[in-house]
Amino acid sequence: MTSPAAPQPHDSPAPEFAERLHTALGDAAGTVLTDPAAMERYAHDDAEWAAYALPLAVVRARSTDDVRRLVELCVADRVPIVPRGSGTGLSGGANALAGSVVLSLERMDRVLEIDPQEKLAVVQPGVVNDDLRAAVAEHGLWYPTDPASAPWSSIGGNVATNAGGLCCVKYGVTGDYVRELEVVTGTAEVVRLGRRTAKGVGGYDLKSLLVGSEGTLGIVTEVTVRLRPSRPEERTVAGYFDSVTDAGEAVAATLAAGVVPSAMELVDRSCLEAVDAWKHMGLSLEADVVLLGRTDTPGADGAEEAERMRQAYEKSGASFVAVSSDAQESEALFAARRLAYPALERLGPVLTEDVCVPVGAVPEMLGRIQATAAAYDVRIANIAHAGDGNLHPLIITEPGNDAQRERAQEAFEVILADALALGGTVTGEHGVGLLKRPGLGRELSAPVVAMQRAVKAALDPHGILNPGKAIV
Amino acid sequence: MTSPAAPQPHDSPAPEFAERLHTALGDAAGTVLTDPAAMERYAHDDAEWAAYALPLAVVRARSTDDVRRLVELCVADRVPIVPRGSGTGLSGGANALAGSVVLSLERMDRVLEIDPQEKLAVVQPGVVNDDLRAAVAEHGLWYPTDPASAPWSSIGGNVATNAGGLCCVKYGVTGDYVRELEVVTGTAEVVRLGRRTAKGVGGYDLKSLLVGSEGTLGIVTEVTVRLRPSRPEERTVAGYFDSVTDAGEAVAATLAAGVVPSAMELVDRSCLEAVDAWKHMGLSLEADVVLLGRTDTPGADGAEEAERMRQAYEKSGASFVAVSSDAQESEALFAARRLAYPALERLGPVLTEDVCVPVGAVPEMLGRIQATAAAYDVRIANIAHAGDGNLHPLIITEPGNDAQRERAQEAFEVILADALALGGTVTGEHGVGLLKRPGLGRELSAPVVAMQRAVKAALDPHGILNPGKAIV
Repeated sequence: MTSPAAPQPHDSPAPEFAERLHTALGDAAGTVLTDPAAMERYAHDDAEWAAYALPLAVVRARSTDDVRRLVELCVADRVPIVPRGSGTGLSGGANALAGSVVLSLERMDRVLEIDPQEKLAVVQPGVVNDDLRAAVAEHGLWYPTDPASAPWSSIGGNVATNAGGLCCVKYGVTGDYVRELEVVTGTAEVVRLGRRTAKGVGGYDLKSLLVGSEGTLGIVTEVTVRLRPSRPEERTVAGYFDSVTDAGEAVAATLAAGVVPSAMELVDRSCLEAVDAWKHMGLSLEADVVLLGRTDTPGADGAEEAERMRQAYEKSGASFVAVSSDAQESEALFAARRLAYPALERLGPVLTEDVCVPVGAVPEMLGRIQATAAAYDVRIANIAHAGDGNLHPLIITEPGNDAQRERAQEAFEVILADALALGGTVTGEHGVGLLKRPGLGRELSAPVVAMQRAVKAALDPHGILNPGKAIV
Repeated sequence: MTSPAAPQPHDSPAPEFAERLHTALGDAAGTVLTDPAAMERYAHDDAEWAAYALPLAVVRARSTDDVRRLVELCVADRVPIVPRGSGTGLSGGANALAGSVVLSLERMDRVLEIDPQEKLAVVQPGVVNDDLRAAVAEHGLWYPTDPASAPWSSIGGNVATNAGGLCCVKYGVTGDYVRELEVVTGTAEVVRLGRRTAKGVGGYDLKSLLVGSEGTLGIVTEVTVRLRPSRPEERTVAGYFDSVTDAGEAVAATLAAGVVPSAMELVDRSCLEAVDAWKHMGLSLEADVVLLGRTDTPGADGAEEAERMRQAYEKSGASFVAVSSDAQESEALFAARRLAYPALERLGPVLTEDVCVPVGAVPEMLGRIQATAAAYDVRIANIAHAGDGNLHPLIITEPGNDAQRERAQEAFEVILADALALGGTVTGEHGVGLLKRPGLGRELSAPVVAMQRAVKAALDPHGILNPGKAIV
């Protein structure tokens, strides 16, 4: 366990606080939950081993005004608010504290506007990523950011963690698509940050500051995202390798060849086996590691780019390479990539890493992860947004095996230390939440930590917004 | 005049302050200037009619440590620091206050590192934009952001204003390329914000907060930018129009056709005439407005995109359209676009607007600008990053004509009001500086202004970093 400092509520709320919530927000539509059994599923996200407690109440907001009124009440009694989207987070950012109110935004799930001319969509925070993607596709538009959780995770949660995904190696992360946010502040004011126009530099970029702040600087109640035109079909270059380090070399060689892949994912045999055992997809399991590169460059240039990728794989020791422009043919492998995490979770508690290193350090980092697995006698499966240097070693433990669990936690810390030693970061896209706070403390210098705390104090003067998360 | 609140130094510096600067920083190499004649050229940027005063001293730093020591001294005596790059700013952000020290970063002009594998460059803030572009081109890499001032403006200044440019309609603005900053804080600490890796979400995104903050939250002493591989040749689609609103319609029609132009610039006859009178480029002056679209999509898809652009122009009433894949052929027109501002400045004081509106509102906004020119009897030339909705109406006045100057200032305010009424912003890329503070006050709500002030107070507790700029 990474021993996050156990967050404390700022004050003991008055016992009648839940009653006041009912009065202020109404409960006819199930807006306020206080029944422990009903609250349990809102008390934590998908991070293994991050601390959580049952909250005082769960508020399932229906509107910005619900959120504003909740913040007003919480300011008055200094009750912490823990906002959450779909609860697919992997760092404990949405885990409840004792004495807090969990604010679920899942019912604010409407796509409010799609503007094909401005290539914008305006959505409530509870809209699921894949649902937004489907809605804008009807207008010939594309919302790129595609975390593997896209079928379940919400745009609000994506904004709160600045979520990445498969295509961000070419198209960037959530924050690159956020134009404007409606936010309820820590002083219960409703503000708009950023703007709808393509450019704008008026005043500080508080919109970008809010993105990735895990609900600690404000509660996002509306998101305006920019969209791209639908893109051409992708070509896939799948390579089989006998070692993760060879596959890592192939990633570095591909990028060195000037290719700008639209995806560059690494999946190892452990992941493929777990998916196949679950979904019976008939995946080929002949390789230790599969590297899935894609290019969406159109025409002859795209074919040439795929060819350069193939050569980079072969030069790096691939045992087999297949180039395909048939979407169906490669979709099974990408589907397996997306399903790897839930498939492994079926086997036992999974401690998920999210380090990101310079792309040139990917082979070295993958080698160190293997060495750590051996040294601590734990099973580590690997999926990776390899083209970004963003690796997800997954430490899998047997349920109830405490000795193994302790070794897994030690291995987790070693991997963080290795990533930092190679010039990397402890979290590429999952966020800090609770699990990465100790690692972040090692990553950032003391003056930077002080600056982050000063910003937190400036924008959340009552300390009620998801305290104890995101920063150290 | 937009009556910016005249910024005041926080305190009367001790008379021996300049002496202490000499002692601390040395003056053998011309680091500290106190001679009024020598200081004059450092006392203001390129904004017409923004207030400035001679500073107490000018410090031409040679190193991060020079900057740190300067901040230490200024903290002790509460002396404001006004940082500046090349002084090409157009909003007065680098204008000196009485009693301040101007900090010039022009001598910190080294490219420290180019890493082709990670596609990164690390530069000091005084490196000129075009010099960075040339340096990385030798490695087959490309730094996209290209303000029209690229031959003169520095990367530090580009970061301070989050500068845009011609290609940002496809490739984004300065902030989209900044990975990491070294910053001297308002408490004289040297920190690194952001990171070198492709992704990272550890803690608040203070790097993005610093970008565009005009030296009011920290002084940037080193910049790490990401690079792209060199791109394919562009095709240019030049269209001649009889009215700016027709050209505006062509912009909207081009974007509605799903084209993603790599540039989409508008230049009117006033600008072309001024450039031709200066440079004798033999520009064709048969059109009232020229629209310069480009695409860098390779191969047949690029040809098809250029064809869709041509059709959009013709549908919108172009009198002539020429499609060219010959770089030389179109370069003269783009060179004229880049030279428009200095060419007009030769004719008299130019009050430069920088509004940005939704792209669908470009024709309406251009029409309103024409109406304003007529109503206030002033000459307004137009250049525009039209594909972003970022317009630069240039109000040209006769030297010494006070009545005209007053009318120009009134027209300036009307244009800001029109941009806001159409859902736009008062500054797309030039920054707030002094000139846009009143407009920004109209654009932002009171709680957002309060949030910005709270952030400023949190990160610049002594109020010494470029006070009175960037926010309201």
